Amino acid sequence: MTGPAPVLPPAGAIPGEPRRLVIIGTGLIGTSVALAMRERGAEVWLADRDPATARFAVGLGAGRELPPDGPPGGPADLAVLAMPPEAVGAALAGAQRRGLARTYTDVASVKEQPLLAARALGCDLSSYVPGHPIAGRERSGPAAARAELFLDRPWAVCPDPSAAAGAVQAVTALAMACGAQPAQMAAADHDRWVALISHVPHLVSAAMAARLELAAGDALALAGQGLRDVTRIAGSDTALWTQILAANAAHAAEVLPAIASDLMEAAAALASLAGGDEDAAKRVTGLLERGGAGVARIPGKQGGPAPHYAVVQAVIGDQPGELARLFTAAGEAGINIEDVRIEHSRGRPSGAVALSVRPDAAGPLAAALTAGGWPVRALS
Amino acid sequence: MTGPAPVLPPAGAIPGEPRRLVIIGTGLIGTSVALAMRERGAEVWLADRDPATARFAVGLGAGRELPPDGPPGGPADLAVLAMPPEAVGAALAGAQRRGLARTYTDVASVKEQPLLAARALGCDLSSYVPGHPIAGRERSGPAAARAELFLDRPWAVCPDPSAAAGAVQAVTALAMACGAQPAQMAAADHDRWVALISHVPHLVSAAMAARLELAAGDALALAGQGLRDVTRIAGSDTALWTQILAANAAHAAEVLPAIASDLMEAAAALASLAGGDEDAAKRVTGLLERGGAGVARIPGKQGGPAPHYAVVQAVIGDQPGELARLFTAAGEAGINIEDVRIEHSRGRPSGAVALSVRPDAAGPLAAALTAGGWPVRALS
Repeated sequence: MTGPAPVLPPAGAIPGEPRRLVIIGTGLIGTSVALAMRERGAEVWLADRDPATARFAVGLGAGRELPPDGPPGGPADLAVLAMPPEAVGAALAGAQRRGLARTYTDVASVKEQPLLAARALGCDLSSYVPGHPIAGRERSGPAAARAELFLDRPWAVCPDPSAAAGAVQAVTALAMACGAQPAQMAAADHDRWVALISHVPHLVSAAMAARLELAAGDALALAGQGLRDVTRIAGSDTALWTQILAANAAHAAEVLPAIASDLMEAAAALASLAGGDEDAAKRVTGLLERGGAGVARIPGKQGGPAPHYAVVQAVIGDQPGELARLFTAAGEAGINIEDVRIEHSRGRPSGAVALSVRPDAAGPLAAALTAGGWPVRALS
Repeated sequence: MTGPAPVLPPAGAIPGEPRRLVIIGTGLIGTSVALAMRERGAEVWLADRDPATARFAVGLGAGRELPPDGPPGGPADLAVLAMPPEAVGAALAGAQRRGLARTYTDVASVKEQPLLAARALGCDLSSYVPGHPIAGRERSGPAAARAELFLDRPWAVCPDPSAAAGAVQAVTALAMACGAQPAQMAAADHDRWVALISHVPHLVSAAMAARLELAAGDALALAGQGLRDVTRIAGSDTALWTQILAANAAHAAEVLPAIASDLMEAAAALASLAGGDEDAAKRVTGLLERGGAGVARIPGKQGGPAPHYAVVQAVIGDQPGELARLFTAAGEAGINIEDVRIEHSRGRPSGAVALSVRPDAAGPLAAALTAGGWPVRALS
């Protein structure tokens, strides 16, 4: 058995990696960037509009307080503006006026609004490269920050045409140093795309969940995993999501009518079906097939289409040690578990665990678990 | 460490539990019922319109072939009709004519259609109690069957007013013997409710996923867990889901327009916001809040609102044995893991595992894993 594998290239191995950083805004994202860069040995200075919040982040080991006259020793390599999109323009103008760094980026969830504001305020756009790490948490603030927040997450890098190549390199290197996957794109493309793949799904989930107001109490006892998956994100913070949607309102508004129209078309087809028009089934199938094609395009765990894993299920007790015993049996058989899910076990002492493995490992895993005394089913 | 705990009351401990069963239709559900009841020592006779399929189920140990003149020794306690809803009425009429059992049920995904057909065909409705186990698999057929399929799943029991109390008891006992949670309701309520909590979410998921046809290839690299959750069920079998939706078309059609209307209202509010009308944000918040209220009503793992678990995250290598070592460390600390999720690890040798535990176990778990050398973050 081996210990945790090394995660990132060593400090200094990423070309252009900033070694001296200023972080303005020590909430979840800013403090997480600071912690990640501190782990790589970078010098980090922290500031926040609320000095107590900055001191809290300092206390977490995320860096030192930024002196009023800027980083000792002159401008930092990079200043990260970690604040809501509407605040970025003015903060950038102030930071550039103070000469805090040679390069600037932000981490807000939309990218056109900060860039337009920066341009309107006369900021130097050659040294500013907007960014957006696609990472979050159910909690906010520096206490929730963690260095691992960005591991393997996408990080959009959205340079204006006037951005200097070195500035783009520095922001790309920051993303890589935090363990993220940088993806370069135009700010307008970014905003249109996150509307489609993040903001609109949130509204769709909310609209479905809102409809549960029709359900009698007993009805929801019949709820399965499908409903839970579709509506999970509708349980998020409504004030935060109103802000997110408001900052990208035009793009989100563009996508919704086509979804509403597809649902109305499905309702009409189903009503025709209920009235005896069996041809209407084709229109239902058509929507389902378009949905299936869309899902197939979402990259899976390894960055391409989702790999096909086989699933081996085992019935387990609910005592401490059960999972350890089971994983030990799998490990001793030399099997790499790709994913694992514990299934519901409402009001019972036992449950089922579903283990995903490469297809050629399913047989050996099932055999190993059977030999260990677990009731097992192998699926493929 | 202990072996798998006993799961169900012993055979005979459930009042009215059928001990002699006929199963007509040996697909996924029928064979799974048969396997579950065989494990409890019941006598089971199997039939299918395709004799080879019935013999396959016999080969799996699910029971014996049903002789042409019915179960040896006279009518069974219960006959289970495991077939699509449109086939149930005629099958019930035939089974009652043959006197196969004292009580009859079916397991189809809608309940009004079979009951109406049975009434139209002059079936004895005192001995027929429609049922619906809310359980399924990504695969079909007897090979995919498993005795555990119904463990802790809801099982709707939908007696007509003319059903005999003993018949209702027998079907309720079948559900309990299979490890399911029986829930009694009227057939019309069942169909309206599964439209809302299963069939409509499927269409909503498909309509969202269909919209991804707008996305450039790079856009989907930004996809997060939210999009994956909302669209997961849109990846299901389209032919099967067309059948399911067609059988409950009227109820599903009733729910969709309100969802479409909420989405159009959100689009209008967002367009107003983009145009500078800041009051429109309230309308967006209103939809999000209704969504949050809906999600909060869905029962969680333990049958009530979802319990609050603390999450401890650890960075792990991708080698066989890593998870075993980690779960061993947790088990040795006496900690019961409630849920586990392995997070994405695209193109890297390491990933993160998120362990859900009762809140008072989070500190000890984090300490145990830290002592074992894993980088750990505890969330609450």
